[in-house]
Amino acid sequence: LRSEHRALTEGFGVHNLPFGVFSRGDAPRVGVAFGEHVIDVGRLDLPGAEALRASTLNPFMALGRPVWDAFRRGLQQLLEADSAAVEPHLVPRDQVRMHLPFQVADYVDFYSSQHHAENLGRILRPGTPPLTPNWKHLPIGYHGRAGTVAVSGTPVVRPHGQRRGEGGPVFGASTRLDIEAEVGFVVGVGSTTPLTVADFGDHVFGACLVNDWSARDLQAWETAPLGPFLGKSFLTSISPWVVPLAALSAARRPAPPRDVELLPYLRDEDHPWGLDITLEVRLNGELVSRPPFAQMYWTPAQQLAHLTSNGASVRTGDLFASGTVSGQARDQRGSLIELSSNGAEPLVLGDGTSRTFLEDGDEVIIGATAPGVDGSLIDFGAVCGRVRPAPA
Amino acid sequence: LRSEHRALTEGFGVHNLPFGVFSRGDAPRVGVAFGEHVIDVGRLDLPGAEALRASTLNPFMALGRPVWDAFRRGLQQLLEADSAAVEPHLVPRDQVRMHLPFQVADYVDFYSSQHHAENLGRILRPGTPPLTPNWKHLPIGYHGRAGTVAVSGTPVVRPHGQRRGEGGPVFGASTRLDIEAEVGFVVGVGSTTPLTVADFGDHVFGACLVNDWSARDLQAWETAPLGPFLGKSFLTSISPWVVPLAALSAARRPAPPRDVELLPYLRDEDHPWGLDITLEVRLNGELVSRPPFAQMYWTPAQQLAHLTSNGASVRTGDLFASGTVSGQARDQRGSLIELSSNGAEPLVLGDGTSRTFLEDGDEVIIGATAPGVDGSLIDFGAVCGRVRPAPA
Repeated sequence: LRSEHRALTEGFGVHNLPFGVFSRGDAPRVGVAFGEHVIDVGRLDLPGAEALRASTLNPFMALGRPVWDAFRRGLQQLLEADSAAVEPHLVPRDQVRMHLPFQVADYVDFYSSQHHAENLGRILRPGTPPLTPNWKHLPIGYHGRAGTVAVSGTPVVRPHGQRRGEGGPVFGASTRLDIEAEVGFVVGVGSTTPLTVADFGDHVFGACLVNDWSARDLQAWETAPLGPFLGKSFLTSISPWVVPLAALSAARRPAPPRDVELLPYLRDEDHPWGLDITLEVRLNGELVSRPPFAQMYWTPAQQLAHLTSNGASVRTGDLFASGTVSGQARDQRGSLIELSSNGAEPLVLGDGTSRTFLEDGDEVIIGATAPGVDGSLIDFGAVCGRVRPAPA
Repeated sequence: LRSEHRALTEGFGVHNLPFGVFSRGDAPRVGVAFGEHVIDVGRLDLPGAEALRASTLNPFMALGRPVWDAFRRGLQQLLEADSAAVEPHLVPRDQVRMHLPFQVADYVDFYSSQHHAENLGRILRPGTPPLTPNWKHLPIGYHGRAGTVAVSGTPVVRPHGQRRGEGGPVFGASTRLDIEAEVGFVVGVGSTTPLTVADFGDHVFGACLVNDWSARDLQAWETAPLGPFLGKSFLTSISPWVVPLAALSAARRPAPPRDVELLPYLRDEDHPWGLDITLEVRLNGELVSRPPFAQMYWTPAQQLAHLTSNGASVRTGDLFASGTVSGQARDQRGSLIELSSNGAEPLVLGDGTSRTFLEDGDEVIIGATAPGVDGSLIDFGAVCGRVRPAPA
């Protein structure tokens, strides 16, 4: 293990230890990524190990912060001291198949990047202020389709749908298929009463990467007056590894300054949950954007407080995503509609081709890293997807 | 049983046989309503009986139309011929507790009454055409919160939330708590490929009543640009009895005439799934509206075809609701915002009080009936809720 330890890819070390669900021809079960291996953690004598023998993270996530923390400390101690206990339970990562890490209860997508909201407002509602009047007062969000959240690698079948045509609406394959690079947060411990920003760490298990594939032409036609629906519901991809919140302690930052006073339930000065996560968006292998999560206006703790402020319950497995992460700079935008200025300024790729929106065969890989404790690096792994042609 | 048969309340006879989940101090299990009784159907020797011993309808619903139909024929024959087989398994309905009948996978709420959409458009977007340009071309809908769908009788706790105030947004108890009288459809057999209007009967198990409680003040402030969120997510109530689709065969009607040509995937001339269901909305016991489902512009078969047209999968337990059912006449409107013309014309009740929106202590009961075969009546039972004050 000592040599393995040294040979670790830096971002999957003892300070990360993200959770996923893996199999290799047998029953899916929970594993923890460590270097180039998956640890078959249900076989270790650690707190919560029984719940880790399940095919989803949900039973373990429901156990709560004290068990999560005890498991984490125990595993870190084993990895640092007792190679004999772990070594028999290491599986090479390139030999496993990864599954959807948790059963998604409800899926909410927020809209919490000011740069993204302003970019979209300028594109979609020209001539009006780019931000709606409510935007700086509450985290705008909506419910997405939980049943079409799928693990990274799931093919992205170009959706059919209605869009505006010259003589009226037409039905056909989307011509404006886009990505949305996001970070998602997973509820471990549910609640039937409103949660405060201070409650965040007791209820949220961890974070993953999200690509909320979007058909902009379907979305534009359907969206008034009740919001996005089929333009989003065909597929949402998430990374196979859920980074535990504890691994992000060194990445916490205050959110950017706000220029309106927030209502008390959203004030977060004492509980900053901005996170210094840097995303990387690759299109056919080429780095096209590095969206900075640290620039997000609303933090996930504020999102959860808002989500429950009306008394709505949350459950184990609820996923709430940040909305597209876009920074101020052009090469920090998290969607193609922004990167190509709604198609007006195509993105020129290294192979000489250019893109406004995704073409059949295109592959998008979104990765992310964050600072870990003791100068370590936290690697989120990646959420990937390749576009398949629309069905005949 | 013969005397029981004659004494049946008319709407819960052999031509209805709706499914629910009941208990009486023991484990919840599937029952079928028959007159004043619940039949403990998991104890009968009928097709699918094993799946009926579950605490939700989901396992039985997943078995599909041939099993549903065989079970129904078998139970009808038992009830008409063999009283000795059924009698030991009858439980008085007033001795049971009813539970959420199925585990809700995804919840979609449509907006398919033209009268409702026009009434809301006039109220919420004065000075613009009441229907958005897309409305007659596709069934507008959005995803709701599956985790807050609850069975009839669940208290309606007045939600807190942000709303517009004079000097900026304020946070407090909603002052415009409303109802939405709807009919919901439950998916039994899922699909990973698009469904046509002809597929409706093979995939949809049955129908229930829905009250999609709405906080109009929260909704108005939050809704731009991504649609309703916390104004709806605190609670959606459904009736405890799911009426099987087979019981509605005599209620099928063509949808009202359309004045635009529909795209091929929405054409339903050969598969009319308009339904002659008449809802009754009672506020504190007083009948305030009789919304006619037969006037809905979009049928549930079109809604399901649209929902899956982009390749989105559907699962056992998916619930999609019609949207507020409002007829053309004033006393056919399915929400208080319509019945009171957005508060301008309060509804005067028999006790001399008047209502714009709901007050603490108010009780709303929505019932419905439809014509059954052989001149019988199909009773949907009711979805009820009483408003409790907002938490201190």
